[in-house]
Amino acid sequence: MSLDISEYARVAREIGVDAVALVPGPNFTRLVGHPFMSHERPFLLVIPSNGTPAALVPNLELRSWDLVGFDGAVFDWRDQDGYDAAFTALTGHLRIRSLAVEGQIMRVFVHHALKRAQRDLEIIDGEAAISGLRVIKTGTEIEALKAAIAVSERALEKTLASVSLGQTEAEIEQALVLNLFAEGAEDHAFRPIAAAGDNSARPHAKARPDYRVEAGDALLIDFGARKHGHCADITRTVFLGHASDEAREVYDTVLRANRRGHQVTKAGITAHEIDDAVTGVLEASRFADRIRTKTGHGLGREVHEAPYIMRGNHQVLPAGTVFTNEPGLYKIGAFGVRIEDDVLVTETGSVSLTTYPTDLQVLTC
Amino acid sequence: MSLDISEYARVAREIGVDAVALVPGPNFTRLVGHPFMSHERPFLLVIPSNGTPAALVPNLELRSWDLVGFDGAVFDWRDQDGYDAAFTALTGHLRIRSLAVEGQIMRVFVHHALKRAQRDLEIIDGEAAISGLRVIKTGTEIEALKAAIAVSERALEKTLASVSLGQTEAEIEQALVLNLFAEGAEDHAFRPIAAAGDNSARPHAKARPDYRVEAGDALLIDFGARKHGHCADITRTVFLGHASDEAREVYDTVLRANRRGHQVTKAGITAHEIDDAVTGVLEASRFADRIRTKTGHGLGREVHEAPYIMRGNHQVLPAGTVFTNEPGLYKIGAFGVRIEDDVLVTETGSVSLTTYPTDLQVLTC
Repeated sequence: MSLDISEYARVAREIGVDAVALVPGPNFTRLVGHPFMSHERPFLLVIPSNGTPAALVPNLELRSWDLVGFDGAVFDWRDQDGYDAAFTALTGHLRIRSLAVEGQIMRVFVHHALKRAQRDLEIIDGEAAISGLRVIKTGTEIEALKAAIAVSERALEKTLASVSLGQTEAEIEQALVLNLFAEGAEDHAFRPIAAAGDNSARPHAKARPDYRVEAGDALLIDFGARKHGHCADITRTVFLGHASDEAREVYDTVLRANRRGHQVTKAGITAHEIDDAVTGVLEASRFADRIRTKTGHGLGREVHEAPYIMRGNHQVLPAGTVFTNEPGLYKIGAFGVRIEDDVLVTETGSVSLTTYPTDLQVLTC
Repeated sequence: MSLDISEYARVAREIGVDAVALVPGPNFTRLVGHPFMSHERPFLLVIPSNGTPAALVPNLELRSWDLVGFDGAVFDWRDQDGYDAAFTALTGHLRIRSLAVEGQIMRVFVHHALKRAQRDLEIIDGEAAISGLRVIKTGTEIEALKAAIAVSERALEKTLASVSLGQTEAEIEQALVLNLFAEGAEDHAFRPIAAAGDNSARPHAKARPDYRVEAGDALLIDFGARKHGHCADITRTVFLGHASDEAREVYDTVLRANRRGHQVTKAGITAHEIDDAVTGVLEASRFADRIRTKTGHGLGREVHEAPYIMRGNHQVLPAGTVFTNEPGLYKIGAFGVRIEDDVLVTETGSVSLTTYPTDLQVLTC
């Protein structure tokens, strides 16, 4: 078996650069088939627009690297010696003038090592085109996403069944995490959010160890399992004990926006058009001043990836795209509501991969 | 309360740059007191060598940012508008010519955004000095490390008690993860390793779903909980059913190296000297050809951080440094042994924060 680098060589030709570089992360894992760590050690796979690839590999990873079926030149380096000589050997071997890198993934110390080795190397941010190869999910990837979502929804159900008044946000979050792993998560996709009351109005809230949930609170849970290397990302907002009239009206508004997102989606729509439709529902309500976020983002090996579902992004969504549909309304100092589904784009419409009910839920706890 | 930026301003003066920049990650969290996410959104805190700091903040984080007690200028940006205008406003406000960044943490898209905003800005990798502020742990940080280690050791004990022949590596790993969270981990410090037989000879092995452990196998478990934002990193290697004479001799060699590391450590020793002592024990054995790694690395908010315990690194370790002492011997295709403790440097010697026994353990499973 040898690695199929042809897609990345094609990206290099499309961008008009001499080569594409991948570092450990989602694109690297997608190509080589299993995850590598980088930490403080540079690890680089360079795929020229034409010709054979080359890799710069930490010596202690060589035995694992042997398993990936790589045909090209390998430049390894040992901790004791540092990596500058390996970079010089790599760039001397490649003889390229321009290199597209993953701007969202490659760190500055690798960028600087490349520039030290070859001062005139032009390093271009090729993130959009490189990670763009991940936009259309394969059947296997969709099954992995479904598995991650199934684990997540079972964990959510168990967690909500265990919530009681007087628990802290941190306790609820801890229960959620434990349930995720008990249900078979291989990791969580991101540090989950369990935020109640006024904290639910912060889109990226952190659970508080000292806030005890009260009757009437909104409880916003935003979380996801990772399974087979793929991420779920789900938000549900429930109310504890009772929900005020205002809370019900806000919830209904967000739910209508979420449903509008499902309705308008089909292959060929742009990210802009989806956000315009979803955010348009929120804007037409009397809560327009509570809008703080775009509609969503792509979902796959990373919990945030292209395409970003926002106005101004005129990227066309092909069938096989998976994105989050997560409208929300946030009243600072009071409460927030977000409802987030993971949506698969199809030729004829959309399929919600999340199946956990979105109707307003008042927990009797 | 306002943020105490004085240490970072001092680092800027020491490096001789006009300012230091932090992005979400361990230094950022250490300074502002709780973690922020960045994902695809640039988020930047700039601390000048003299004067007031400035921040570039994604608009949806503004309400969380309000909580950190930041006094300086804030340049926010919305997804819909992109962030280039905010970078231009930030650099126009700062009027600096050189900026030290965290090379191991800042990604290329932020680097490029800075360069687009100010073409002549000199961006220097200040990782060593910036993250160097984390080398000496405070009492609170040491307590957090102890808590992470206590959780991890309880999880290890439960996991080893449940191992049985015929389990897959992946099943053992999954049990370990579940035990970590059940014991109170807030996260795992890194994706754990549970590797048996020939897979244990790969320093960064991945658990195999299709390999069932057999009598006579080495089982290497390298893992750690995160607690209060701090990481444990522990390895133990046990044998299943029985251990061969060779395995016992290898184990004894690695254990002697590990103990040597504890013995030589005290404030004032260099990283080079520790590695030299530890690796020296391995080199003096008949297994010298099985050495593949350095002795270890610093441990704290990140599982790999400075100081890196290796020959050639003549950094002096002050009291309060915490590092991993993890010698190993790896026979490719056969088995590996690693014994890893987390060591606190004191004025008079060292304290092993890990207390799980290191004597050879043969599981009767």
